[in-house]
Formats: sequence, structure tokens, C-alpha cells
Amino acid sequence: MTGFDTRPVFFIIGALLSVLAVAMLLPMSVDLAAGNPDWMVFAIAFALTLFFGVQFMLANRMDRIALNLRQAFLLTALSWVVICAFAAVPFMVSQIDLSAADAYFEAMSSLTATGATVISGLDGLAPGLLLWRSLLQWLGGIGIIGMAIAILPFLQVGGMQLFRSESSDRSDKVTPRASDLAIAVGWIYLCLTAVCTVMLAYAGMSWFDAVNHAMTAVSTGGFSTRDASIASWNSPAIEWVLVIFMVLGGMPFVRFISLAQGRAASFWADTQIRWYLGFLAAVSFGMSVWLTLTRGVPWDDAIRVTTFSVVSVVTTTGYASIDYERWGPLASVVFFILTFVGGCTGSTSGGLKIFRFEILFIVLRALQRRLYSPNLVIPLNYNGKPVSADVMISVMSFGFVYLMSVFVLAFVLAFLGVDVVSALSGAATAVSNVGPGLGPTIGPVGNYATMPDGAKWALAAGMLLGRLEFFTILVVLSPSFWRR
Amino acid sequence: MTGFDTRPVFFIIGALLSVLAVAMLLPMSVDLAAGNPDWMVFAIAFALTLFFGVQFMLANRMDRIALNLRQAFLLTALSWVVICAFAAVPFMVSQIDLSAADAYFEAMSSLTATGATVISGLDGLAPGLLLWRSLLQWLGGIGIIGMAIAILPFLQVGGMQLFRSESSDRSDKVTPRASDLAIAVGWIYLCLTAVCTVMLAYAGMSWFDAVNHAMTAVSTGGFSTRDASIASWNSPAIEWVLVIFMVLGGMPFVRFISLAQGRAASFWADTQIRWYLGFLAAVSFGMSVWLTLTRGVPWDDAIRVTTFSVVSVVTTTGYASIDYERWGPLASVVFFILTFVGGCTGSTSGGLKIFRFEILFIVLRALQRRLYSPNLVIPLNYNGKPVSADVMISVMSFGFVYLMSVFVLAFVLAFLGVDVVSALSGAATAVSNVGPGLGPTIGPVGNYATMPDGAKWALAAGMLLGRLEFFTILVVLSPSFWRR
Repeated sequence: MTGFDTRPVFFIIGALLSVLAVAMLLPMSVDLAAGNPDWMVFAIAFALTLFFGVQFMLANRMDRIALNLRQAFLLTALSWVVICAFAAVPFMVSQIDLSAADAYFEAMSSLTATGATVISGLDGLAPGLLLWRSLLQWLGGIGIIGMAIAILPFLQVGGMQLFRSESSDRSDKVTPRASDLAIAVGWIYLCLTAVCTVMLAYAGMSWFDAVNHAMTAVSTGGFSTRDASIASWNSPAIEWVLVIFMVLGGMPFVRFISLAQGRAASFWADTQIRWYLGFLAAVSFGMSVWLTLTRGVPWDDAIRVTTFSVVSVVTTTGYASIDYERWGPLASVVFFILTFVGGCTGSTSGGLKIFRFEILFIVLRALQRRLYSPNLVIPLNYNGKPVSADVMISVMSFGFVYLMSVFVLAFVLAFLGVDVVSALSGAATAVSNVGPGLGPTIGPVGNYATMPDGAKWALAAGMLLGRLEFFTILVVLSPSFWRR
Repeated sequence: MTGFDTRPVFFIIGALLSVLAVAMLLPMSVDLAAGNPDWMVFAIAFALTLFFGVQFMLANRMDRIALNLRQAFLLTALSWVVICAFAAVPFMVSQIDLSAADAYFEAMSSLTATGATVISGLDGLAPGLLLWRSLLQWLGGIGIIGMAIAILPFLQVGGMQLFRSESSDRSDKVTPRASDLAIAVGWIYLCLTAVCTVMLAYAGMSWFDAVNHAMTAVSTGGFSTRDASIASWNSPAIEWVLVIFMVLGGMPFVRFISLAQGRAASFWADTQIRWYLGFLAAVSFGMSVWLTLTRGVPWDDAIRVTTFSVVSVVTTTGYASIDYERWGPLASVVFFILTFVGGCTGSTSGGLKIFRFEILFIVLRALQRRLYSPNLVIPLNYNGKPVSADVMISVMSFGFVYLMSVFVLAFVLAFLGVDVVSALSGAATAVSNVGPGLGPTIGPVGNYATMPDGAKWALAAGMLLGRLEFFTILVVLSPSFWRR
């Protein structure tokens, strides 16, 4: 190759593809049990994916897998693109027979836990495909957490170096110790999903729906098994259960280990968690008051529908229980702004993420004081750790790249003929991995099926860019990355 | 007062009010000559403004006027608010009889050189009021340049410390030397306006229209003497003349001194000028190609209408020669994005300003390279001067405060019932001091008259906040500013 050893990269991608292949056996079994001929699609996709996965592993096997910085960047960028291509196969070949653009869009939206869909008629869809969508979000979700714990702090992307010590990885190599941590987090992820499933079933969902929604809630992905999303159950109990697990899905998973070890104090000491919960509570409450006062909605209805929608958008899940655009321009503007926020880092959620707002707030407060008291020395701390100028610049650069990506994507969408509101909100929702945008086409009750093919490719690229926190992709695309 | 000496602040505000009062004699004379009874309005406003101006000066006279940091902040924030109140008087009392909200909005839009108007029927308006609007923009324009040269670098707002040495003010006090420079710049401003007037008259405007448009072009304010703005002349010659002077108005005025001294090399050595001209050329050219290819517009028409609109928005002037929204969603998204850009710092234009994009670009490029080559030392230079971490953080913080202001203002507008597109684009155009937004209400052919009163107050606040580069206002509003 061009100067550096790509073997560990392709070895790991091979391993990940093999995992994906094994995951295909699940929807295959479900379709087989349901007597749906789509089981053959999954069987073929399984064989194909496993073949390539094993081939990649065999062709690149090494004594010891250790990644250097460049290999880690390449792995991060490339693995999602490749896995997504294989994950799209069942969408293309099955009964719903999606085009390449549609299938790749749906697979990318699944794996990045975005939750935008081009498929309508979910209510009548074969169970295998429904499960496949949810399962991809669930696998994507744990992949995102693993990436945020083990890879991004090491790559120093977007201020993530702040979380370097937390991942118990202090060396310059991604060590197996990081994967130990990932396994612990994986168990927590599995447990949360199991508990959510039971609670949803108890609240009135069928077991099949409960499993699917548990997977898409904890991964803050937001796919549903019905076109009308959560609205079709019309059940406050189900909505509150989902609120709880979306909120949990948007929290830093390493902190759940503290909690599991009985160290609740260390859980609550994390300012990110306090800001996150405080923000969700404040916005939900404020919207409820507004909705009650101006629209005459009864208070208990108001608090439920606003909390659900606010949590769904801020955690970047994207379930819909109500068409909040009917509440008028204020709701549209609020949900557009909320699209950018995101949950905590180290969670399954996307967006700018709470800790970056904290850093920004700390910087702005200090800056503002320093303007009129230039000799004042203001210590800048985040969670008790000093924030270096490097971290501040990383965090703020991240914010700008984020916004520029949204603008560029909106430009591309508008160039392809998408209307202004759909272009701006669609770009924001894709990059933030939320799912629904604004307007009749892609709003909370909409669907991406009618978008032009080019727009679907562009949106899929936006989802990937946002999910991988931009710099991983930008670095790999820069020519000098490949020189030494 | 509360702990510090406000006398120099009010003394200077008094002096500025006296200048404003004298300026009122101009529209008074014009109305008197035209036999319009509004001349009495200006006479009364003159007397009132002069009275308060002189009172302020007398009550706060000092041996030597020198401002410390806090006084400079207070002066910057307070002077615009007070002057605006007096500038609004003729709008309230004259024949058009605007409400307080409308009059203050119009005065703020004038003084900040924004160019959004609530007045329709300009074509039949008394010449005094037309001249008053243009004159306020012209006075606001020179005020903005003076502020950017003499005050903001000293206040270290938004990375403006980079321009500290340029203003020949190296001490910690705002010295008279800075005002010497301001006088030189004032002459250039006057000369540009005179040349523009002659060229506009030559291109076919009446002398009255030529004077008005020369004042609103050089100040990148964008008020016209007709409802249909520049479109009503339908003259390519007039449009190209205005393009030239809008472009000049968006350039750093201190550099014109170099040019006047024959040092053209130092003019072109300023990267901000090169980026600015390059950006305008590239966007205008790109839009023209697109317009020719997709809409079948002849090339010479296309290059004229796109250049005019692009220059009008980027320089934050806001003249309209065509309704670019009819070109479809791409044009709307492009002009929405262009609303944020702005011209050069040290000019009359608003927006984020070119040098901040340069700094951002420098930072992002270095950051991206450092991600995969952590040991690389990358020198960061802007115009040959090293860029400190402090400057980077200031610039980026400025960007965030900018965007947050837009979002907060959009939220307020939507809360008051303004539709989504008008709220978002109206917020952006006010904070950037551009003028027109998107949509049927406030688009290039629209008017702010139908906005609710609350929205007008909010938009006026947004204009002020953007014009004064946020931090000046935020600092003065912070309680700890008033403690010692």
C-alpha cells in the first residue's frame, strides 16, 4: 500500500464483518420461523459477509494486533463504510427491493443510529427486515460507545482527549485494556436492552415490538416497527418507558460502571450528567408550560408529549409520538435548535454533545470576565481537571466543522432541488444523527423516500461524517495523511 | 454612580449627540427647500438633541478626556442606544408618524447600517426623511470604522487584538493618536462618497438619489429612496457602480491610507483583502454559471445580477436588484449562508468578517495535520504575525456567540408568532446587519412593517448586538462588570 501497514486495519474490519454476518442469522431465523421467504436473503447475505470477513482476516493475520495513530484513523473511517455496504445487502435483495441509494441510506441510517427511513409500509413488512433495522442500530450503538471510549480520546478528536484517562488507556497504542472496558460496557448495554424489553412488553407491546424498540431506544437510533412510530400505540406507559431508556442511552456508559460498582457519588459528580438531565428537564418543562398556556393542552398530556419529543430529539433518537410542527413556528425553531445539542459523550447519541457546551460555557464566561479584568487569572476546569488551550481549540473547531458540514450538506441538498426548510433541517438532522427534520417531507411524520437519489447519498455521507466526529474522515481524506 | 467615573462616557455621548443634532440641519434644509412642513420636525429634533448633547457635555466636562477599559466598554454600548433614541425622533413625529417600535427599529437599522425598513411608500416620501435615513447610515458607517480601528482592538473583542498595532495605539488608553487616524479615514470615507455620487449621477440617477445611494453604498447600509430598491432603475451602469462602492465599503479602511500614500504593495499584502475579493469573485462566478446553465439566463445578465446580489449580501449592504428567491431553493440556501460571512474588519460591513474565517481556516488546517502528526510543530501566522491561542479562542468564541445570538433571536421571533423561515433568516440578517432575509415577508422584495412590535424591538436589539460585536454589550450587562 502507500507507505504504511494496513494489515491490522483490514484484519479488524474482517473481524467486524464476521460479527455482522453472525448477526444476520437472527433475522434469518425470525423469517424462517414466520415462513417468510426473505430468510434466504439473509442466508445469502450471511454467507457473502462471512466469506469476505474471513478472507480479510486470513489475508491480514498478524501475531499481535496493535494500531498506531494512522491505522486507527483509517480503521475508524473505513470500517463504517465497508460494514455499511454489507449491511445494505438484505435491503437491496429482499422483497422490498430497494435501490442502491435507498438501501445504502437505510443501512447508514441504521448503523449510525440516525433513524431516518426511506421505507414506508413498516406495519406490513416482514419481521426479518424489521429486526435487521433494529439490530443494526443496536450494533451501531455499541460500536459508537466503543469508539468514544477506546478510539476517539486516543485520536484527540474534537476535545475527546479530555476523556483519555477515563478509558484507562494512557499509552500511545490502543491496548487490549480498552477492549476490556468495552466488554464491561457491552454487558451494561445488553442489560439495559433486556430490562427495556421487559418493561415495554409489560406496558403493552408485543414481545417482537418490545425487543425492536428496546434495541432502538437504548441505541438512541429511533427506528420503529410501524410507520406512525410510537404514536401508533397511543400509550403513555410505553412513551414513559421509552423516555427513560432514551435518556439512559444518551448518558456516558462508563459512568454506569461506577453505578454498578455502587459508587453513585462518582456518577453524580460528572457535570456532564447533571447538565444533560438539567437541560432535558428545563426544556421539557418550559415547552409544557408554553403548550398548556397557549394551546390549552391539559398539563399531564403536555408534559408527556413535550418530554417525549424533547428527549427523542436531544438524545438524537428520533421517535415520533406527535407531530410537534402543528404547534406552530416556535416548536419548529426549538426542535431545529435542539437537533444540534446531542447527549453526553461516551453514549450512543450524536450531536454536538453536552460536554462541548460545558467547555464552551466555561471559555465564554472566563473570556467575558477577562475582557474587563485583563489581569484576572481564571482557572478553567472541567470535572475537576484543567482545560488546556488545546482542548478549547479542539472543542470549538469541532463546533465549526459541525456547522460547516451542515451548511455544505444543506447546499448540496438545495442544489439537488430539495426545498429550503427540508435542506437545512435535513442536513442538521443527518449530521446530528437525529432522524426527523422539519417540513412536510422529512418532518416527524415524514419519510425520506421521495428525496432524490443524490440527496440520499449526500445525507448518508452526512450521517457518517457526524457519527465519526468529522475529523476522522477529514484526516483520512487529506492527501498528506498518505505521505510520510 | 456605582464605583467608577462615568463622566468621560457621558461627555463623549454628549459630543456625539451634538454632531447628530447638527446633522439634522441637513434634512431640515432639504425639506425647507422643498416646501415640506417636515422641516419643523427636524428643527425641533435638532433643538432637543442639541440641548441634551450640550447638557451632557457641560455636566461632565473634564480637563482631559481619557478612557479606561471599563469606561470604553460602557461608552461603546451606551452611545449607540442613546444616539439611536434621538435619531428616532424625526421618524416618530414626522408625517409618516411611525410608532415607537417602528421608529426605533428604523433608526437602529439606519445607524447600524443594516438596511431593514418598516417604511413603505418610499417613492412618495418627503426628501428630508429619505435623506435622514441615508445620512444616519452614513454616520453609522464611519462610527463603525472608528470603533473597529480605535476601540475594539483595545477592548480585545472577538480576536480584534490582532489589529491593535495597526491602529497606532499601543498604550492602554485610547489616545488622541487613534482619533488622528480616524480623521484620515474619515476623509477617505468622504472622498469615496463624493466619487460614488458623481458616478451614480453620471450613470443616470438624479443628484438627490445619487447622494443618498452613495451614502448607503459606502456605509454598506443599503437603504434606497424607492420601495423597489435598485431594481426600480433597471440600469446595469448604476448596478455596477454600486457593486464597486459596496466592495470598497467592505474593505479595511486603514489600508486605503496605504493606497493613498502610494504603497499599493502593502494594500495587496493584506490577506484579508485577497480572501475577500477572491471569495466575492468565486461565489459570483459560480452562481452565474449555475444560473446560466439551469435557468437559461444570458451570461452578461447572469454575471450582473448574481454579482450584485452576492456583493450586496456579503458586504452586508442589502440592496435588491432582483428577487433571487425566485431562482429556487439553492439560491435561498446560498444567500442564507452568505448572510453570515460579512466583509473585512475595519470596514463598514457586519457579519462574522473575513479575517475570522481566515483564522478559523488556519486553525483547522493545523489541527487536522496535528491529529495524525502529533509531533509536528506548525507555526500559525496571520498576515505575517503569529496567532496566539488567545486570539484563536477569542475568534472562535466570537463565532459561537454570534450563532447563539442568531438562535436566541430566532427563538424570540418564533415565540412572537413569526414563521420559521422568517424567524431564522430574520435573526441572521439582523445580527449580521445585512437587511433582507428570506421568504415573502422579509425577503429581498419584502418589508418589516407587518412584523409584530415585539419582533421589531427584538430585531433592533439583534442589530445592535451584532454591530457592537456582542461582547461589548454582554460585558456591560454582566453584574460583575459593575462591581470592583
